[in-house]
Amino acid sequence: MDSQPQSIASSTRPRVLIIGCGFGGLAATRALAGAPVDITLVDRSNHHLFQPLLYQVATAGLSAPSIAAPIRHMLRGQRNVTVLMAEVSGIDKTRRSVSLADGQVLGYDFLIVAAGATHSYFGHDEWAAHAPGLKTLEDAFRLRARVLKAFEQAELEPDPARQAAHLSFVVIGGGPTGVEMAGTLAEIAHHTLRDEFRRIDPSKARVLLLEGSERVLQALPRSLSAKAEAQLRGLGVEVQTRCRVVGIDAEGVSVQQGDGAEPRRIEARTVVWAAGVAASPLGRLLEVPLDRAGRVQVDGFLRIPGHPEVFVIGDLAAAQSLEPDGRQRPVPGVSPAAKQMGAHAARSILAALRGRESALRPFRYRDYGALATIGRKAAVADLGWLQFSGYAAWLFWLFVHIYFLIGFRNRLVVLMDWAWAYWSFQRYARVVVEPAAGAPGGRSPA
Amino acid sequence: MDSQPQSIASSTRPRVLIIGCGFGGLAATRALAGAPVDITLVDRSNHHLFQPLLYQVATAGLSAPSIAAPIRHMLRGQRNVTVLMAEVSGIDKTRRSVSLADGQVLGYDFLIVAAGATHSYFGHDEWAAHAPGLKTLEDAFRLRARVLKAFEQAELEPDPARQAAHLSFVVIGGGPTGVEMAGTLAEIAHHTLRDEFRRIDPSKARVLLLEGSERVLQALPRSLSAKAEAQLRGLGVEVQTRCRVVGIDAEGVSVQQGDGAEPRRIEARTVVWAAGVAASPLGRLLEVPLDRAGRVQVDGFLRIPGHPEVFVIGDLAAAQSLEPDGRQRPVPGVSPAAKQMGAHAARSILAALRGRESALRPFRYRDYGALATIGRKAAVADLGWLQFSGYAAWLFWLFVHIYFLIGFRNRLVVLMDWAWAYWSFQRYARVVVEPAAGAPGGRSPA
Repeated sequence: MDSQPQSIASSTRPRVLIIGCGFGGLAATRALAGAPVDITLVDRSNHHLFQPLLYQVATAGLSAPSIAAPIRHMLRGQRNVTVLMAEVSGIDKTRRSVSLADGQVLGYDFLIVAAGATHSYFGHDEWAAHAPGLKTLEDAFRLRARVLKAFEQAELEPDPARQAAHLSFVVIGGGPTGVEMAGTLAEIAHHTLRDEFRRIDPSKARVLLLEGSERVLQALPRSLSAKAEAQLRGLGVEVQTRCRVVGIDAEGVSVQQGDGAEPRRIEARTVVWAAGVAASPLGRLLEVPLDRAGRVQVDGFLRIPGHPEVFVIGDLAAAQSLEPDGRQRPVPGVSPAAKQMGAHAARSILAALRGRESALRPFRYRDYGALATIGRKAAVADLGWLQFSGYAAWLFWLFVHIYFLIGFRNRLVVLMDWAWAYWSFQRYARVVVEPAAGAPGGRSPA
Repeated sequence: MDSQPQSIASSTRPRVLIIGCGFGGLAATRALAGAPVDITLVDRSNHHLFQPLLYQVATAGLSAPSIAAPIRHMLRGQRNVTVLMAEVSGIDKTRRSVSLADGQVLGYDFLIVAAGATHSYFGHDEWAAHAPGLKTLEDAFRLRARVLKAFEQAELEPDPARQAAHLSFVVIGGGPTGVEMAGTLAEIAHHTLRDEFRRIDPSKARVLLLEGSERVLQALPRSLSAKAEAQLRGLGVEVQTRCRVVGIDAEGVSVQQGDGAEPRRIEARTVVWAAGVAASPLGRLLEVPLDRAGRVQVDGFLRIPGHPEVFVIGDLAAAQSLEPDGRQRPVPGVSPAAKQMGAHAARSILAALRGRESALRPFRYRDYGALATIGRKAAVADLGWLQFSGYAAWLFWLFVHIYFLIGFRNRLVVLMDWAWAYWSFQRYARVVVEPAAGAPGGRSPA
């Protein structure tokens, strides 16, 4: 970091550097449209990902482009933004600069760090190889290949015990992603693959959902958790709560149900990790206090201590919402919160530029409710003032997701895909693609 | 191969083993629908690929599932077929058995080998890493990532010479794939990416099409080659014929134009190999004479010498068509030929089962013409009795490809995608995904 920070724009307008183009970074960028600033948006991938539907790519219901929009295409009309596809390797708060992996150094006047979260295996990183998580499109493709190949390998396998292991799917973690994955896997086994195999019966597949606490969907009221569990059971999912995972290897999972209990073994070739989330390691570059999950502790304006020009938003931030009653409430790691934080950080920057910082109120998270889908015609919804489940909740889930999906074309295609899937019970993206590093024409993965 | 070949069906009906589910293997399988045989169809991937549109996946115009249909789903209604996703590791003609990579041995009464073709670098395998070819979905994803990242890296690059190298695209080989790739790359640079970059002008990108012979699309009449070249030049492609590639490395390509000429250097970070095709290495397992391209020399009934129960079809076969005038003509490596050979092999098997082999005529390839598209509203068509180019040829190309595309849903989606692309100049599948072998949750590539 010896080179002089270079301004990436030739003008002398204030430079806003935004790291990460998830829901938070994108909201901040858009909120600064038309503002007299030069924005540089850095992301290591070329697309904004609609993560709430990622499990549908992993379960072959949607193709990747349906939920991933090229960032620079989305922002092509916003002339004050330069999009760079690059990896951030360092942050120098004193010199107000960010260095990229290729050695470039970008100066800033305001910095918004919105690098998001990644999987956490609670200190068991050796589990990662056996129980992939679901955060990126790469993860989704890997998981899709695993699930589809599990049925293929069962069809090839003459030994009944190993066949059963291929046909056992374990989802670890009963949050929304775990519930959605388990429900969809059960649907695939019982409906999608019907009549397609000759040696196995895919509907004999077991789908287990393991949750450490006493109920699934802990963020929702108890009554909706119970409804979700009943709907999952109706789809053929074995829900096991108070079930702690103590080991994962290539052959299956070891679990403990209740504190002094003997560990129990579940043979399963496909294990999905939907349990732990940790903040992006990028937070460490800021050299400020982090909480246990690696999140950056920010003030009421989402800034880090001593640096009013540095904002941290989204899943990377341990933020507090100032409620109308004056109390503070932790902001949950959900996409509406990230969007709201992005917009708030942008407003802070605009206020600072106008010298009107004092007029701005601390961040307050507006909770419009929570939703989780379980499968065909099954979902639960909690709008605070109203809780419902079943078909109505499913339709509501569908509407909300289509509405928030980025880009008109994607909405139309996804709606068509869903309509088709609904009537045919089919999933069209059942393609196993695994670029092999050593294949002809292969390149070493970046 | 010590274990006893096992029948994979419990019945005593004749066993037909088909290796490969491209156009040839699929046609053979379908032609045996309802026949009193037990078919096992082995393919190492889980999908049938509509290869003529693969370049559209590589250039972000279509998503992978639009041109790839799960094999077992396509054949779910054909009860005499068992589909196995597996790699073939050996063929024992004497014992009439095929061994799979996992050690299983499958016996057969009839064998159809339809393993297709792969890239050939004419003895320069070291070029593969720098100039990926286009045969599989993996190839297409790799190429898509390269093309999109080239523009991204140009935007990041401060050095003008290196920026220009990132913005130079070389396509090697002026056959249909090369022509389609070059035309589409030019379209992306000049139309799709307009307004999306701040530091570079993507329309300044160079697209070069290098062809060793004197003209592109050699399989077509000379007049259509000239039209195609003119259309390519109209799109901004630099067409260089009589141009022999003598070297490829990470930085670019060395070419020789005319014998004795000094090698010339083209700096380009993205090089696409569309020049050479070689038969699948699976042909060697048959231990019979191969031609220079590695293809299996078959008789007029597509059988190998001394083994009337073993057929080789599609790109793997060096077959002769018996023309009405009694002359023999080599069968070209195109999908209609593969389909016709598949159907012919199936008819041979049915005739053999009925003891009516003598009634069967040798294979004759019916040539319905050739088509190549160059870009928006540009194509050339040769129907033998009629040759045309331009907008009419493009509409004809569109109709033919939609018609032959597998599965009603794919047709509809592809048509929609094309209509949208036509009006918006956009390509929706601009997603860079590169599963990294060493990433968390990564598995060693199969």
